[in-house]
Amino acid sequence: MRIVALAGGIGGARFLRGLREAIGPEDEITVIGNTGDDIHLYGLKVCPDLDTVMYTLGGGIHEEQGWGRADETWSIKAEMKEYGVGPEWFGLGDRDFATHLVRSQMLTAGYTLSQVTEALCVRWKPGVRLLPMSDDRVETHVRITDENGTRAVHFQEYWVRLHAAVDAEHAAVDAEAIIPVGADTAKPAPGVLEAIAAADVILLPPSNPVVSIGTILAVPGIRAALAAAPAPVVGLSPIIGGAPVRGMADKVLAAVGVEATAAAVALDYGSRAALRSASGEGGGGRREGVLDGWLVDTADEAAVAAVEAGGIACRATRRT
Amino acid sequence: MRIVALAGGIGGARFLRGLREAIGPEDEITVIGNTGDDIHLYGLKVCPDLDTVMYTLGGGIHEEQGWGRADETWSIKAEMKEYGVGPEWFGLGDRDFATHLVRSQMLTAGYTLSQVTEALCVRWKPGVRLLPMSDDRVETHVRITDENGTRAVHFQEYWVRLHAAVDAEHAAVDAEAIIPVGADTAKPAPGVLEAIAAADVILLPPSNPVVSIGTILAVPGIRAALAAAPAPVVGLSPIIGGAPVRGMADKVLAAVGVEATAAAVALDYGSRAALRSASGEGGGGRREGVLDGWLVDTADEAAVAAVEAGGIACRATRRT
Repeated sequence: MRIVALAGGIGGARFLRGLREAIGPEDEITVIGNTGDDIHLYGLKVCPDLDTVMYTLGGGIHEEQGWGRADETWSIKAEMKEYGVGPEWFGLGDRDFATHLVRSQMLTAGYTLSQVTEALCVRWKPGVRLLPMSDDRVETHVRITDENGTRAVHFQEYWVRLHAAVDAEHAAVDAEAIIPVGADTAKPAPGVLEAIAAADVILLPPSNPVVSIGTILAVPGIRAALAAAPAPVVGLSPIIGGAPVRGMADKVLAAVGVEATAAAVALDYGSRAALRSASGEGGGGRREGVLDGWLVDTADEAAVAAVEAGGIACRATRRT
Repeated sequence: MRIVALAGGIGGARFLRGLREAIGPEDEITVIGNTGDDIHLYGLKVCPDLDTVMYTLGGGIHEEQGWGRADETWSIKAEMKEYGVGPEWFGLGDRDFATHLVRSQMLTAGYTLSQVTEALCVRWKPGVRLLPMSDDRVETHVRITDENGTRAVHFQEYWVRLHAAVDAEHAAVDAEAIIPVGADTAKPAPGVLEAIAAADVILLPPSNPVVSIGTILAVPGIRAALAAAPAPVVGLSPIIGGAPVRGMADKVLAAVGVEATAAAVALDYGSRAALRSASGEGGGGRREGVLDGWLVDTADEAAVAAVEAGGIACRATRRT
């Protein structure tokens, strides 16, 4: 069976690790990874989501933290502080730096991000085929208002520096809008559309529906490919009982005007069936729906009816 | 007193540390550092000699090793081995990497190596003004013959990989020629010629006379500036009793056809007095001599007469 999964960082990576254990020896997983939270730091290209997937599936992740490397050292971070070179809010460990050094050197030499990712995976052997959503630069920015006024900051600055990731109760600023800069002109990476078209099943893990899956879907051609794929598309709710499984999905959902409920997220992804009928009625110009099925936690059993009313098959199941 | 010193790596740095302790509060030291052993690794600009001077004078050097950082960690080196990304023979510690990251990012942003060095020294406070010999790229290559035939390799590859540095008895290959690639078109860095012209005394520490001091002198204008300086130029022999104080000066001296003796090195630097008389006799085209005085160890007392016969004042003194 050919399985395609879209994935962000921690949530997606952990889902994939479970998926990899559940499949048979003949099954193949292709992961289309979000690159919208990529950032350039110290002149190096950092791809947090691709690396989290690669490290998690390759056995190098810091388990408790969920990102970065196990057995990490922090000498460079300490040195950067001595040099007064920022940003202090973004922590890159020494082992992690090695990945960014290798990646950056290959990119400078002219390799694409797809080629670099494949090369890095020669070492990590993640057991999946890991593709970046695009070889083009896409950066998710977040509009905020703080003491410096209203402005757009890099997603990582919002997520890490403004403490959105640290404690959902103490986010210093609200995300007012999510802007995937560069997404409108990005092209899907080689193999992405082909994998979607050839899949037997397509999965949307419980990754952030806005800044992870949403950014992947913002690359022109990917949403349409999901809508048109012969395989069923099944998603897993990242919201359980009104709270994100992990992270800050609720905060960025608010920025795009979607309620942080299992049902609202599914309906925002939209039903592939509804699109097909809408298209039949001449409803061109609407955003294509991408879901056939949706899995929610039993805590959200009440969402099932609303999701099914939107043309998406929905089942409630207990997390194990 | 305005003191100018040319310097390579370990030998020069240790000499400068002693010099700094010996001078008065009104005295100023300007160091013109060799950049011929600079190398690009992992896409970063590495300046081994400038860093050795900076770390040694700034209190960050690994004392026993003589190069690199104290309290170093080696995570990146271990990772690079896992990625199969070379060169394995060149060891950069994590703290050291931070310096190269900051330097490379500033160079990419358009700063010159002089400006970057000044910025790094804001942290290290070496107590001297540290100038690279040139902001232009100069790379010392060494011609060797091994199982792969006759070829030129980067000085660092000769010095580190081919074990010239490890054990003088077991150098795998001979240096057949020393080629300062790029030196012919390099310009002295801002302030270099001015410092030489304004100096009260100019010192040549016991650094390698070929690949350290020799490379600095190969930058057009620097040798002539030394020859023409109003201040006396005094050198310290890097050879004591026929052996280099440290490193492999004897091996590279052989490559340029100079005996590894305290006298031969002085005579190869040449007498400023001899030049002046040679010029008076229309001896243009000769390489200018750069020495007024030469200090040798008492073990080389026999060299004094030969050096003085060459027009260079010479004294034998015991190392303390």
